[in-house]
Amino acid sequence: MGNSRLGANQYGKAENRVVRIYRDTARHEIVDLNVSTTLRGDFAAAHTDGDQRDVLPTDSQKNTAFAYAKEHGVTSPEDYALALGRHLLDAVPKADSVRVRVEQYPWDRIQVGGAGDRHGHDHAFVRRGDSVRTAEAAVARTGEIVRSGVQDLVLLKSTGSQFRGFLTDSYTTLAETDDRILATSLVAQWRYGGIDADWNRAYDSIRATMLETFANTYSRALQETLYRMGDAVLQSCADVTEISFSAPNKHHFLVDLEPFGIANNGEVFIASDRPYGLIEATVVRDDGPA
Amino acid sequence: MGNSRLGANQYGKAENRVVRIYRDTARHEIVDLNVSTTLRGDFAAAHTDGDQRDVLPTDSQKNTAFAYAKEHGVTSPEDYALALGRHLLDAVPKADSVRVRVEQYPWDRIQVGGAGDRHGHDHAFVRRGDSVRTAEAAVARTGEIVRSGVQDLVLLKSTGSQFRGFLTDSYTTLAETDDRILATSLVAQWRYGGIDADWNRAYDSIRATMLETFANTYSRALQETLYRMGDAVLQSCADVTEISFSAPNKHHFLVDLEPFGIANNGEVFIASDRPYGLIEATVVRDDGPA
Amino acid sequence: MGNSRLGANQYGKAENRVVRIYRDTARHEIVDLNVSTTLRGDFAAAHTDGDQRDVLPTDSQKNTAFAYAKEHGVTSPEDYALALGRHLLDAVPKADSVRVRVEQYPWDRIQVGGAGDRHGHDHAFVRRGDSVRTAEAAVARTGEIVRSGVQDLVLLKSTGSQFRGFLTDSYTTLAETDDRILATSLVAQWRYGGIDADWNRAYDSIRATMLETFANTYSRALQETLYRMGDAVLQSCADVTEISFSAPNKHHFLVDLEPFGIANNGEVFIASDRPYGLIEATVVRDDGPA
Amino acid sequence: MGNSRLGANQYGKAENRVVRIYRDTARHEIVDLNVSTTLRGDFAAAHTDGDQRDVLPTDSQKNTAFAYAKEHGVTSPEDYALALGRHLLDAVPKADSVRVRVEQYPWDRIQVGGAGDRHGHDHAFVRRGDSVRTAEAAVARTGEIVRSGVQDLVLLKSTGSQFRGFLTDSYTTLAETDDRILATSLVAQWRYGGIDADWNRAYDSIRATMLETFANTYSRALQETLYRMGDAVLQSCADVTEISFSAPNKHHFLVDLEPFGIANNGEVFIASDRPYGLIEATVVRDDGPA
Repeated sequence: MGNSRLGANQYGKAENRVVRIYRDTARHEIVDLNVSTTLRGDFAAAHTDGDQRDVLPTDSQKNTAFAYAKEHGVTSPEDYALALGRHLLDAVPKADSVRVRVEQYPWDRIQVGGAGDRHGHDHAFVRRGDSVRTAEAAVARTGEIVRSGVQDLVLLKSTGSQFRGFLTDSYTTLAETDDRILATSLVAQWRYGGIDADWNRAYDSIRATMLETFANTYSRALQETLYRMGDAVLQSCADVTEISFSAPNKHHFLVDLEPFGIANNGEVFIASDRPYGLIEATVVRDDGPA
Repeated sequence: MGNSRLGANQYGKAENRVVRIYRDTARHEIVDLNVSTTLRGDFAAAHTDGDQRDVLPTDSQKNTAFAYAKEHGVTSPEDYALALGRHLLDAVPKADSVRVRVEQYPWDRIQVGGAGDRHGHDHAFVRRGDSVRTAEAAVARTGEIVRSGVQDLVLLKSTGSQFRGFLTDSYTTLAETDDRILATSLVAQWRYGGIDADWNRAYDSIRATMLETFANTYSRALQETLYRMGDAVLQSCADVTEISFSAPNKHHFLVDLEPFGIANNGEVFIASDRPYGLIEATVVRDDGPA
Repeated sequence: MGNSRLGANQYGKAENRVVRIYRDTARHEIVDLNVSTTLRGDFAAAHTDGDQRDVLPTDSQKNTAFAYAKEHGVTSPEDYALALGRHLLDAVPKADSVRVRVEQYPWDRIQVGGAGDRHGHDHAFVRRGDSVRTAEAAVARTGEIVRSGVQDLVLLKSTGSQFRGFLTDSYTTLAETDDRILATSLVAQWRYGGIDADWNRAYDSIRATMLETFANTYSRALQETLYRMGDAVLQSCADVTEISFSAPNKHHFLVDLEPFGIANNGEVFIASDRPYGLIEATVVRDDGPA
Repeated sequence: MGNSRLGANQYGKAENRVVRIYRDTARHEIVDLNVSTTLRGDFAAAHTDGDQRDVLPTDSQKNTAFAYAKEHGVTSPEDYALALGRHLLDAVPKADSVRVRVEQYPWDRIQVGGAGDRHGHDHAFVRRGDSVRTAEAAVARTGEIVRSGVQDLVLLKSTGSQFRGFLTDSYTTLAETDDRILATSLVAQWRYGGIDADWNRAYDSIRATMLETFANTYSRALQETLYRMGDAVLQSCADVTEISFSAPNKHHFLVDLEPFGIANNGEVFIASDRPYGLIEATVVRDDGPA
């Protein structure tokens, strides 16, 4: 049958739950991260001969992830990911590239001064669950790329969405609709053209742009909505060269209440778990990468 | 060996994902619920003889949960749960009691007018993931009880927490500490003395009181923090007769960075998944139920 | 408003993932456990005054759970739970009772001698995911109770199940059926009359009895099936005084293929996630506890 | 800033829970599937203009997935995936390729004849949770590829695994070990050279080969173990051209029992959730695809 050989391979430490508290003043800051590192390169001997001499243990990668939260600090997940990736590339001669992926869980300060409190407590926090921020640094000997994103961003429009004029075949039973609920749990990831953006400001701006566009766009399909969102991000943020979306179409089915003599004019829906549509699209700047 | 007989039993429909849109004006409202109904009573024949004549199918309970979202409406999960429970008790002669449990997922309007926008979009929403509101109505032929609560409320203090002076035995290795992270994913449920509270207002107030007390209490143990939170709720809300907490102690371990020549003065932690402490306590009004 | 006081309370360490390898010979055994300990007693001072002098840290409980896996050993989860519970009750003077809950994940030896291999490898294992065994020891100063069980036991009958003759109301749309899929993910827990059963043998026997009865009983409702299963366990195992079931009715809906000119005589179903029926019942030996 | 354009995109229906019962005789068979379909092609108009005329709704894809379970049948997930993919490619003129992914949950017949029963019940089943079988058909106008695999296959060796001689840096604290637990939750996927293998037989054979090799290989790293497993599959199954693994290193840490005067010679471990190593590798036949 011939022989076999090693193909693509990579290794690393996944899901280091790094929590960094800034406490230089009485007003603390919390940075709550899930960090994964991945190394690619010439690690053939570890596979074929069990020879580990070129392999930095994933345990050391873990140590570094925690140490760098203090040594380098975490002004943004992108900056931290770049620093960690560069260090690991230096530390492992046989590595060609390192990918560092960071998920950041947002927290709010607890309000202790009543409803009008915009200041919040100095060291007490409540986790804001409205989405997770993501950042990836791909650090190679040939160059560096930063991608940022958001996930678990659950959006819904209770009107302003249609679906009609679609292709039909002998298995089509779906009726056209002029008014439906459109909902998704969005995953978006965008690529920056450089490695020196104002990461936090860009993230906030891009997230807000996506939400505003989702809200303000009349939707003739989730595909169209995603495209408009991507286009708006590219128009508003010159640092971004492309943006990709993965968007489940979280179906909300109108419940038939007629057997009970009740009209249901878009008021009562059942939120369905499975199956779901899954729409994925990338929007690229015209002068962006192929 | 003797014979066997039927003991405690109940049945119902769990996790009806009811989404109710109020669209009487252009400014829609969304109410997003997970509804479970449970019936208790004399259903022995269904078990011992397979005789269903006294059993209202769980499918009918499902239909009713959706129909009532329109027929009765959902001004609050408590009010809806009471109405649904009363109807089911009426519909099933052999039922002694009905329990309706509702989980409500909160949504925010998407801001489309920039950072200062407090108005939000008319029909576009983003799910706020900071906690889930719960309500339970126990409707029996002998009376009614309402319990409300919150779950998935993740709280953290980066200082202001100690743990010392504890009992030790031959298996104790834990060091005392004057400064640690205290974190939990809180489940709280409180019982109302009556069935006519201002449910939405009470929920907002109790949730805010718990958060403020968590923030402002110096903690000598999670037990103490929970007790203070419960006491504050009872002091501030006369409608509540008791409140119960289930609180995992989500451990954040200080990472030893000394091997790398780095001091770690409460700045870098690893958030641990398992095991976790689990602290549960009820605080009762002195003149409350035994 | 009056004052508040501490009500019911308990604390402990949850989900200690204890893996015990027996390696006294070259033929290893693996015992894979998830252990939770809970203490009840007079711990009021910890709540009201932050005084920990009576509180054995959950960290010490964790240490003991691991130490006991070696010191006492794990011949069965029941025996281990009893030993651990007794020790903790001794170690904590203010405790009235200790509950130890153990989940055991089963493993099979990897077959290395072909399909006919019934011996298996000495130290290589594959996790058998067909269910989780559970055991609980409640160790109080006044006595001891052992409960054992199984969970995540997913059962399905492709015929031999009907549902008809049920109560109807104005919200009933369900059609009667003489032939449906009956499926559940069973949780069962039974109570032993004593504390000296042959735990492993009893578990195997009871699990087999439940499966056989599920298979061989024509079902006129999930309630009836559960009752027959419970009755069979009580008939066959004199050590058991009662058994409780929690059984989601995992609906499999017949798919309407008529629009495509295809008859569907109980051949194609969609397995639905939510909502699900939830049937819970206890079967008690006639001379069992009230 | 220039203009934007649509980049890579695809859409489909994910997670159709298709359950197919074969009941031509009294001895039923169950095939339990999770089916996802994905279409790629020229769907630009749906994105840029909201024009759906080339888009077959995901709802129609769902209908087809269920209808094909009867019309075509499911002799194997691979055969069913190919048939479904070919149909969808025919049905959607603008599609260039269709990918159908199937996860199959295995079931065993319930034993009703005692421990020696190898026949099992005719129509009562218990879900075997030891792994999930996967199959993917990529059906393009230019050709077809089949990939099969397994996931959630949890393996453990209690000895016969070392990790030493690795690269160290200033963040390395890990000690070398000659004896550790090696455990993983394996995901494997292999590509067939053609589209007419004996799918079920190949799956069984490849799964057995992987397990045997895992068991019989002394491991100097998880990388080496994976490579040996892949090599063994390629040696034993001529139909396979390459195989890829994704394998979390599920760490089991030896618990320090010395503070309690207990020696722990590889007998008591804590199974850790996060972080975990993540090792990924592909093994390719020498004359296989680049």
